[in-house]
Amino acid sequence: MTRPSRGRRPGAPDTRAAVLAAARAAFAAKGFGGTTIRAVASDAGVDPALVHHYFGTKDDLFLAAMELPVDPREVIGGVIAGPVEEAAERFLRAFLSVWDDADVQPALLAVARGVMDPSAHRLLSEGFLPVVVQPVGAALGIDRPEHRMALVASQVMGLILVRYVMRVEPVASLTGEQVVATYAPTIQRYLTGDLPP
Amino acid sequence: MTRPSRGRRPGAPDTRAAVLAAARAAFAAKGFGGTTIRAVASDAGVDPALVHHYFGTKDDLFLAAMELPVDPREVIGGVIAGPVEEAAERFLRAFLSVWDDADVQPALLAVARGVMDPSAHRLLSEGFLPVVVQPVGAALGIDRPEHRMALVASQVMGLILVRYVMRVEPVASLTGEQVVATYAPTIQRYLTGDLPP
Repeated sequence: MTRPSRGRRPGAPDTRAAVLAAARAAFAAKGFGGTTIRAVASDAGVDPALVHHYFGTKDDLFLAAMELPVDPREVIGGVIAGPVEEAAERFLRAFLSVWDDADVQPALLAVARGVMDPSAHRLLSEGFLPVVVQPVGAALGIDRPEHRMALVASQVMGLILVRYVMRVEPVASLTGEQVVATYAPTIQRYLTGDLPP
Repeated sequence: MTRPSRGRRPGAPDTRAAVLAAARAAFAAKGFGGTTIRAVASDAGVDPALVHHYFGTKDDLFLAAMELPVDPREVIGGVIAGPVEEAAERFLRAFLSVWDDADVQPALLAVARGVMDPSAHRLLSEGFLPVVVQPVGAALGIDRPEHRMALVASQVMGLILVRYVMRVEPVASLTGEQVVATYAPTIQRYLTGDLPP
């Protein structure tokens, strides 16, 4: 639990940073479900209303604490709109529009590299999945969304590892269209295909 | 480049350790192709014949340097034998026999956690893939083995991440049979199915 040093409080430029540090520590230690805005505010030595004022909902606070270079909920909005039979293709195009963007990729890689750290993977598995990934499954109206989205995550994380982190050829040099054609059938089956009971 | 402290040489109990340390440093810095037994021997301050005597071929030395709890070539032998149309299923059964073994899993997890470290992922992408993974593709007689095995790696590494490292449910609790039924179609398509040119 990081308890930031006491200093000038509300309005101080470091209040935001103190709240974010407290939020990161709380999400990592207690998971998304176990963290409350009230507890984060207390750890940061500020009023809960101030946390809401700066960051909005707990979902918003969580995403701010992850310091992602894009709001994944915006990227994912386009995935939900449209026929579910083509959701994998829309997802992959949205994914590539972010990951293949040279301005955004370094910050995403920093997050991906942290995934092996036990505190970070708790942040991902108990925060990112319920806040960002699971709502996509629910919005698509697929059965067993938690199960299916975890399978999707298992292919997407492997793709991130091989294409962007390890840069294994020829996967690293595939065009966006080749990535879509290669991976859309896998992801579409995980989303809507027959799976073992 | 780790240059171990000089001490008693051939026959000394730390000679093996010195050679392994030099090998790890060389594979990480120069990749598998750029490393020679001669250079490793020189870095360790021993005769190349001694390295061959202790460790065999460069492939053997590489696998010893990775400190895997099992020799992946033995596990993979059974994957190659049999019809290529069922290779994915045999591969997944061999994979699970190692990864679901509670005695072996901790050591495998230690290797997996290192994958985000740039030196380790060079070890994996320029060593593990050519020494262990690519020969499987070649032995199966599939077209574009390098391309197809990289796709297989992208699903298998994601499965390792979600099932064993992050323990995301329900994937972490799937039975072996469920894992096979879920992932064999994906991996079989990457091995022998239609892919974009």
